[in-house]
Amino acid sequence: MAVEADILIPIFQLVAILLSAKLAGAAAGRIGQPPVLGELLAGIVIGPSLLNFVERTDLFAFLAELGAIVLLFEVGLESDLSELKLAGPPGAVVAAMGIVLPFLGGWAFAILFLADGTVALFVGASLTATSIGITARVFSDLGRLVTREAQIVLAAAIFDDVVGLILLSVLVSLAGEGVVSIPSIAITVVLALVFVLGSIVIGARSWRRLVPLVHRLRVRGVLLVFAFALALALSGVAAAIGLATIIGAFAAGLVLAETEERARITRDVKPIADVLVPVFFVIMGTLVDVRTFLDPAVLGVAAVLTGIALVTKLVAGYGLRDRRLNRLAIGVGMIPRGEVGIIFAGFGLTLGVIPPALYSSLLIMVVVTTFAAPPLLKRLMVRPPEATEPLTGGGGSRSPP
Amino acid sequence: MAVEADILIPIFQLVAILLSAKLAGAAAGRIGQPPVLGELLAGIVIGPSLLNFVERTDLFAFLAELGAIVLLFEVGLESDLSELKLAGPPGAVVAAMGIVLPFLGGWAFAILFLADGTVALFVGASLTATSIGITARVFSDLGRLVTREAQIVLAAAIFDDVVGLILLSVLVSLAGEGVVSIPSIAITVVLALVFVLGSIVIGARSWRRLVPLVHRLRVRGVLLVFAFALALALSGVAAAIGLATIIGAFAAGLVLAETEERARITRDVKPIADVLVPVFFVIMGTLVDVRTFLDPAVLGVAAVLTGIALVTKLVAGYGLRDRRLNRLAIGVGMIPRGEVGIIFAGFGLTLGVIPPALYSSLLIMVVVTTFAAPPLLKRLMVRPPEATEPLTGGGGSRSPP
Repeated sequence: MAVEADILIPIFQLVAILLSAKLAGAAAGRIGQPPVLGELLAGIVIGPSLLNFVERTDLFAFLAELGAIVLLFEVGLESDLSELKLAGPPGAVVAAMGIVLPFLGGWAFAILFLADGTVALFVGASLTATSIGITARVFSDLGRLVTREAQIVLAAAIFDDVVGLILLSVLVSLAGEGVVSIPSIAITVVLALVFVLGSIVIGARSWRRLVPLVHRLRVRGVLLVFAFALALALSGVAAAIGLATIIGAFAAGLVLAETEERARITRDVKPIADVLVPVFFVIMGTLVDVRTFLDPAVLGVAAVLTGIALVTKLVAGYGLRDRRLNRLAIGVGMIPRGEVGIIFAGFGLTLGVIPPALYSSLLIMVVVTTFAAPPLLKRLMVRPPEATEPLTGGGGSRSPP
Repeated sequence: MAVEADILIPIFQLVAILLSAKLAGAAAGRIGQPPVLGELLAGIVIGPSLLNFVERTDLFAFLAELGAIVLLFEVGLESDLSELKLAGPPGAVVAAMGIVLPFLGGWAFAILFLADGTVALFVGASLTATSIGITARVFSDLGRLVTREAQIVLAAAIFDDVVGLILLSVLVSLAGEGVVSIPSIAITVVLALVFVLGSIVIGARSWRRLVPLVHRLRVRGVLLVFAFALALALSGVAAAIGLATIIGAFAAGLVLAETEERARITRDVKPIADVLVPVFFVIMGTLVDVRTFLDPAVLGVAAVLTGIALVTKLVAGYGLRDRRLNRLAIGVGMIPRGEVGIIFAGFGLTLGVIPPALYSSLLIMVVVTTFAAPPLLKRLMVRPPEATEPLTGGGGSRSPP
C-alpha cells in the first residue's frame, strides 16, 4: 500500500543515525575513547556541516529529547537515593564553585576584551552550564555510576541545572526589560526546589499506590509502559515549570530505583535506551557547524573561553576537601557544557545580545568541552581513584597535577 | 534549563496515549475482548472526536508508523519461513477470492445505487483491502501466530497488499488521465515481486556477512540496533517502491527468524514493541470522526457496504478446500480494512472522485470491519480449530454456520 512520502526520508535518516552511531561508537572504543565521542562525531559527519543527510528537524528534536529522557531515566534507575543524599553536600560545593568561577572568568574576560554589560553576563552564564547527559553516559559506559565521584557529579549537575535556570531567567528579564524581576525569580526558585524534592516524595507514594493496579492489569508490557509514562510525565512537569526535562526523568528513575520492580524495569528500559540514546548524541553532533572553525578571530576568542571553561571547572572539583575522592575526575565530569551551554548561547543570540561571531566562539567552547571531557574522564575513571589523587596537596583551588 | 515549548505538549500527549492504551486494553481484556480493541477505542476517546487531546500530527504519524514497523518486525521474527511457504498457495487462493469478491460486490452496489464509472471502481477497491496489522496483533496476543490459519492469513494479506498497490496505481492513473498506463503497472508488479522475494534472499545473505562484524563491534546494544536498522531499511525500501513499509518490516523479521540471533533479537525488540505498538493503534483510533455516525443516509450506505465487506471476506475463507482448517477464522482474519482501507478511500476523496458523504460511509465500513474482526477472531481462535469447523459442508463459497 502507498505510504506518505514524508515518512520515507525520516526512516532512512533514522537508519543513518543508528548505523553511524554504532560504527563510530565502536571505532572510538577501538582507539580507547568512549563510544559517546564517536556518536557526536557521527553527527558532525552526517549533519549539515559535511554530508548534510540529517538535521535537527522537529521530529529528530523530539526523538533526541526522548533519548535524553531515557538516558537520565536509566541513570536514575541505576543510582542509589541514599548514595545521592550523601553526595548532596559535596555536590552543592562543587556546583557552587563550578558556577561562580566560570561565571566570573567569562564575565571578566568579556568585559575586559570584548564588550560590556549584558553581553558579558551572557558569556559568563554560558560558561556555567554542565551537561549531565554526557558525563552520566561516560560513567554508565564505564560501569562506574555507583562510585561516589559519579554521584557527586550527578548531584552537582542537578544543582547546576537549577541554578542555571534561575540565572537564565534573570538574564532574559535583564535583556528584555533592563530590570530584574525579583518576584518572578523567587517563584522560579521555589518551583524548582519543590519539584526536585516533591517529585521524589510524591512520585514514590503514587507509584506504591499504582503498583497493585499495574499488577492487576493483565496486558502486555504494562509495567514498562507505566514506568516509562512516569518518566515522561515527570519530564513534562519539569519542562512545564521551566526545568530541563531530563531532571524529571532522573527523578522518575530515582523513585523507581527504590521499588521491588527496579530490576524488571531496568532490564526492559535497556533495549529502548540502546535505540534512542544514540539519537540524542548524534543529533547533538549535527548542531556543530565546522565552518565557524575557520575564522581566526572567532578561534582566538574561543581558545581563551575554552581555557577558562576547562580550568574553572577543574578547580571546582578541588573545592572538595576529601582527598580520598578522585577530585580531578569530579572536575572533569563537570566540564562538558553540551546542550545546556548551547541553549544559553542560543538565548543570547536570539535575544540580539550576543553577536554571531561571539556565538560561534561560545559554540566552539561548548563543542571542545563536550568532546574533551569523555576521553579525559575515561582515562581518569578506569584507574582506581587513589592512583590519580596525589597524596600531597591540600583542598581549595589547587591546580590539577 | 529551558526547553522548547513544542516538545512539552507531545510529551504529555504521549503519556495520554500510553496510559489510555494500557487501561483501555486491560478493560477490553476484562470483558473478554482483545486489547487492541481497547486501544482503538482509547484513540477515539482522546482523539479529535471526543476529548480532542491527541491528533495524528506528523510526529505521531511517524511514531505510529514505527509502531506498525515494530509490530510486523516482531510478527516476522515469530513466523516460520517454511510454514509461510506452505501457507503461500492457500494464502494466494484466499487473497484472490478476498479481492475479487469484495471488489465486484462494492462495484456492483455503487454502480446500481450510487454513481457510475470511476466512483464505483474506487468503492470496490476500498473493500478489497486487508489490514495485516490488526489481524497479526490478535493472533499474537492469543499466542496463535504459529497456527496454519494465522500463516495463511498473513500470506494472503501480503498478496492482498501487493495486489492492492497495483489496483490503486491503476485507479489513480484512471482518475488522473482517464487511461491506464500498462507499462507503469507492469513496473509496479515486477518491483513488488522482486522486493518481497529479493529482500528475503538478499537480506539473509547480507545479514550472514554482517553478523561477524556485529559481534566484533564492542558497543552496547549493537545487535539490536543493527536488527532494528535492517527492519527500518527494508521498510524504507518497500515504501520507496510504493509498497507498505510494514511489508519490509515483516520481511526483515522473516530474515532474522532464520538466524542464530533470533532469540536475543526477539527478546530485545519486545520492550520497544510494548511502547510503540499501542501508539499505532491509538493513533488509528484518533482518525475516527464519530459525528459522521449521525447522518441516516451515510449510515444506510455504510450498513450495506459493511455487509458486503463482511460476507465477501468470509466467503473468501471458504475458498479453501481443506476442512481441517478453521476456514471461518481465516475469513474473519481477512475482514479488517484498517489503515489500508482508509488510504484507499482517502485517495478517492483527495482526487475528487469520492464525494465526502460516500467517504464517510466508507470510513464507517472500515471502522466496523476493523473493530468487529478482533473479538470475532478471538472467539474463533481460542477454541481448537475442529470445534468451529463443521464436519459436513464442502469448500467453495459455502456461507459460514
